[in-house]
Amino acid sequence: MAGLHAACVDLPSPDHAASQAIAAREAVLTKPAGSLGRLEELVAWLGAWQGRATPSLERVRIVIFAGNHGVVRQGVSPWPASVTAQMIGNFFAGGAAINQLARIADATLTVIPMADLAPTEDFTTAPAMTIPAFLDAVTAGYAAVDADTDLLCLGEMGIGNTTAAAALAAALFGGTGRDWAGRGTGLDADGVAHKAAIIDIALAHHAACRDDPLVAAQTLGGYEMAGIMGAVLAARHRRIPVLLDGFVCSAAAAPLRRLNPTGLTHTSLSHRSAEAAHHALAGFMGLNPLLDLGLRLGEASGAALAVPLLRAALACHTGMASFADAGVSERT
Amino acid sequence: MAGLHAACVDLPSPDHAASQAIAAREAVLTKPAGSLGRLEELVAWLGAWQGRATPSLERVRIVIFAGNHGVVRQGVSPWPASVTAQMIGNFFAGGAAINQLARIADATLTVIPMADLAPTEDFTTAPAMTIPAFLDAVTAGYAAVDADTDLLCLGEMGIGNTTAAAALAAALFGGTGRDWAGRGTGLDADGVAHKAAIIDIALAHHAACRDDPLVAAQTLGGYEMAGIMGAVLAARHRRIPVLLDGFVCSAAAAPLRRLNPTGLTHTSLSHRSAEAAHHALAGFMGLNPLLDLGLRLGEASGAALAVPLLRAALACHTGMASFADAGVSERT
Repeated sequence: MAGLHAACVDLPSPDHAASQAIAAREAVLTKPAGSLGRLEELVAWLGAWQGRATPSLERVRIVIFAGNHGVVRQGVSPWPASVTAQMIGNFFAGGAAINQLARIADATLTVIPMADLAPTEDFTTAPAMTIPAFLDAVTAGYAAVDADTDLLCLGEMGIGNTTAAAALAAALFGGTGRDWAGRGTGLDADGVAHKAAIIDIALAHHAACRDDPLVAAQTLGGYEMAGIMGAVLAARHRRIPVLLDGFVCSAAAAPLRRLNPTGLTHTSLSHRSAEAAHHALAGFMGLNPLLDLGLRLGEASGAALAVPLLRAALACHTGMASFADAGVSERT
Repeated sequence: MAGLHAACVDLPSPDHAASQAIAAREAVLTKPAGSLGRLEELVAWLGAWQGRATPSLERVRIVIFAGNHGVVRQGVSPWPASVTAQMIGNFFAGGAAINQLARIADATLTVIPMADLAPTEDFTTAPAMTIPAFLDAVTAGYAAVDADTDLLCLGEMGIGNTTAAAALAAALFGGTGRDWAGRGTGLDADGVAHKAAIIDIALAHHAACRDDPLVAAQTLGGYEMAGIMGAVLAARHRRIPVLLDGFVCSAAAAPLRRLNPTGLTHTSLSHRSAEAAHHALAGFMGLNPLLDLGLRLGEASGAALAVPLLRAALACHTGMASFADAGVSERT
């Protein structure tokens, strides 16, 4: 884990010259200063990480990592584990929500089944993954990031993974199962209480993993979550801005934030999920969601939905006239 | 005003058969029930007003009404009134934010200068408009709505119009200038206090207008705001769903809500403006904004920005596979 740890701590910084050039242009465009709000911030963020005073959104890529979870045998999901593979079939056939959203976003879609969809160990009794299997999954995620990418949207599919995400969030940021367990794909109140109890068993069994964010991810996470973490890390080293999806995707990236306070500054959180604990998780991670539309689907749906906002922001920045060019008076 | 009043009270209802058909299809698509959150509600809303079980977004039209305000002579804006006409030139030349956002939204853009951009009267001393001039403006707005429209996005341009909007909101929903005055296009704290005082003078001078929402609009509104109200009303009678923009656009439509509690159910609020009082105004109007990105530009910018969300919602609804078609197991 030492090599991975070093790669998570020693990170490149944004290009402040690019963001300053963007701010200078923003100031002369035909609108009151700051009146495009977060759209202006998004352009500066894109440019700072791309290292370009004129950011590009030509090559937007969506990558979904999929994996299965041994803890499903504890009855934490109302859906059978077979749905993970079935939904991958649906992704390839074009019938899932993300297929439609990728088209609207004008983005490519790649689906990566992790570990041949073999489940992790049931983490109530053993670490979810061995260290080598965890490192393999992180490496696969790292390798999945095409250097020729202007914006990377990340998401996941995996029956049971809100349980893993909740357990990992608890290990990283404190609290118990009750604080982090939510309805997931549709549990009732009894189901949520059971899920919280299962998480508490895992946290008690693996108390030591709270001391090391990477060990926590190996012990309580999942293959697809390790893949996401690897992809977020690759994007940082390649200076690619990232849109994170919802609760599971956020939890998967969270170890990077714990290892380095600036570890996720190249990411934006696309939306606040309806999964109840996502609000708290985003707060711990210092991320302010762009959208809040009650989505709780995963599969990068929120990230894809936010892409047109970035396209709109960039179109305003590059296409608007200046006060001088348009002959519009400035404020008195 | 009696004819207009009747047209505002006697309104068509949504097509519940269409929204029920949409809900029935939504229930079999390959996702947990309700997991697309407000996207699912938006499709049902589009269909209910279009009267179609498969809504369309082929013909999305943005209409901006522009007008000038006599109250600008009271020093309520940091920008000269001449900017209203200059910005219309910028709209026609393609250099404004809305031109870029309309392209991203794949929407047509129409700009309607009202009353040849003659200013209203200064409403601290006289009604902003005569009754005939107000009715002419409402009629012009009504006539601006093409019946062959799937979605209508409304916005405005008018130096000084956050002052008119604040005064109208106070007349319709109570409170004083201090409750409703905001920074507008960039006032400092002293400027906001002065604006509030000007609004209080107008409210005291026209106390009787609080009794009649249409008289309030005539007395404290503006030509572009009357145009927006007419367009919202036309859309209702023609069963066209509407995306409202920010603070001024909301205030312009608000009389319809005061005249009939269901008067704005064919509208959605595209965003919460950074103008401080927009949150309260939306609450009084029963509208829950789709976006909250700190925009405070007007010119239909928030409405246009929300169009891709509706396109994404519709694409999911029409393009996704059912559980049966995709061979995906349903929940246990």
